[in-house]
Amino acid sequence: MSPERIAQCAELAMLIELSSDPKPGNVDRCHDFSDIGFRHFIVSAVSAYPVFRKAASKRISFGRLLLEGVNAWKEWNISSNTHFGSLVLMIPLAIAAGMSGDLKHETAGVLKNTTVEDAVDFYCAFALAGARVADVSEFSLKDQAAATELRKQGKTLLDLMQLSQDHDLIAREWSTSYERLFRLAGQLAEEVQKYGLNDGVARTYLAALAEFPDSLVQAKFGRDRAMAVSLMASQALEDETLESARKMDFELLASDVNPGSTADLIAAALFISLLTGLRFR
Amino acid sequence: MSPERIAQCAELAMLIELSSDPKPGNVDRCHDFSDIGFRHFIVSAVSAYPVFRKAASKRISFGRLLLEGVNAWKEWNISSNTHFGSLVLMIPLAIAAGMSGDLKHETAGVLKNTTVEDAVDFYCAFALAGARVADVSEFSLKDQAAATELRKQGKTLLDLMQLSQDHDLIAREWSTSYERLFRLAGQLAEEVQKYGLNDGVARTYLAALAEFPDSLVQAKFGRDRAMAVSLMASQALEDETLESARKMDFELLASDVNPGSTADLIAAALFISLLTGLRFR
Repeated sequence: MSPERIAQCAELAMLIELSSDPKPGNVDRCHDFSDIGFRHFIVSAVSAYPVFRKAASKRISFGRLLLEGVNAWKEWNISSNTHFGSLVLMIPLAIAAGMSGDLKHETAGVLKNTTVEDAVDFYCAFALAGARVADVSEFSLKDQAAATELRKQGKTLLDLMQLSQDHDLIAREWSTSYERLFRLAGQLAEEVQKYGLNDGVARTYLAALAEFPDSLVQAKFGRDRAMAVSLMASQALEDETLESARKMDFELLASDVNPGSTADLIAAALFISLLTGLRFR
Repeated sequence: MSPERIAQCAELAMLIELSSDPKPGNVDRCHDFSDIGFRHFIVSAVSAYPVFRKAASKRISFGRLLLEGVNAWKEWNISSNTHFGSLVLMIPLAIAAGMSGDLKHETAGVLKNTTVEDAVDFYCAFALAGARVADVSEFSLKDQAAATELRKQGKTLLDLMQLSQDHDLIAREWSTSYERLFRLAGQLAEEVQKYGLNDGVARTYLAALAEFPDSLVQAKFGRDRAMAVSLMASQALEDETLESARKMDFELLASDVNPGSTADLIAAALFISLLTGLRFR
């Protein structure tokens, strides 16, 4: 697949994830947040296009690409975190898709080959993006001095992700070579086949949220709240009309509960599905 | 401005136009048509990205670029016409933006320098896209033999557009060096400043529709119906809450009246605004 086509799949994945609804608690086609709207996510998706194309065609490190992606938002005056988690999950996929081998195998290699400099760039990008995650005791992402410490201890980005895997869904994927993401991509393709693109994406989002408590919700509101949200998702999934999911959406929005990590997983799963031939009408 | 940035402005213009609402009678963030939806427009916008980048960086003729744009939809299995009018208006702007001079001046030059081969390619692209316009007596766009006739008579694409300028809003822009489009872009920037991005775009759409009857509506339902729709838009514009525009949207959708040419003008006006520094929050 050409780097151009890979970048198009990536951008399309972000835009389809964004515009599917209902995805309880997240910005979708039907509503914005008070501080960040659909337009900011559109701009951030468009600004990431060259990053994905470069990822698929040039030997540029993950860390540099991530920094370029976050800096591109700033060029368009986006001050909030839009697609940080999506970039962290999707850039390795774009690098892998530009290689000759099996996507899953190449992705695992990309993650394993990350370096200490990738870890340092990740810290930098994280601060620039204003992203939010649960703290890891050893290397607080809020502590800039930790970058020096990382270099001293020779920790790669994969090491860092492994330290966070119990607290953060995205770090968990990194630590397990995207095992769950590839499974979600298969599930997504089946749901899209059965329910069409919008409802297939919405249902896979609900299923993913039901399966694991969202780490962004957990970082903000604690484990109990995150588990309660997962239970709601599980119940909403039983209603094929998605009306229960719409009701859940209102409830989460009213209490500012935003399962953003799960949305990032869905964007990445969509990317895998598109790379591996997802068809929709 | 770099070709990459020009392509980003073009794609963003398409996506912002698409997702602004209400734009009575067109696909927007809130509703699809029965046969063509938001997702098709997203795919078509993403597939056009390389076309815009090439337009801004390489010496490729308008006709070839247009053909590439329409063929790109097919690669993504889009069988309906999504952005044909937008491509016809925006490709010359992307070519002009890649040149060193003033955008308006360079655009006029691009249009004037189109050739007979551009006209032939346009015919081909038109047939591929399944676009709909009012017939021009001399060169029916439904008649493929006309391509041979064009070559024989040595008609350039600009000649062809001049023949259609009384029937078609897009041909009218070509024939007048985008005079109205540059004015609409200025108006759009003012409205966005005053009402924010979404309402600014929606209000400029209404104002444009009120100013000139939409040529797609006219081709499908006749002049009287198109004039009546313009009158509705003029009245809807008086209601700052846009509630009247929402009501108008329901009415047009119910009768399958789709002012698609006006939507194309707004995408192109947004492109000009973004190229010339439009800011929004």
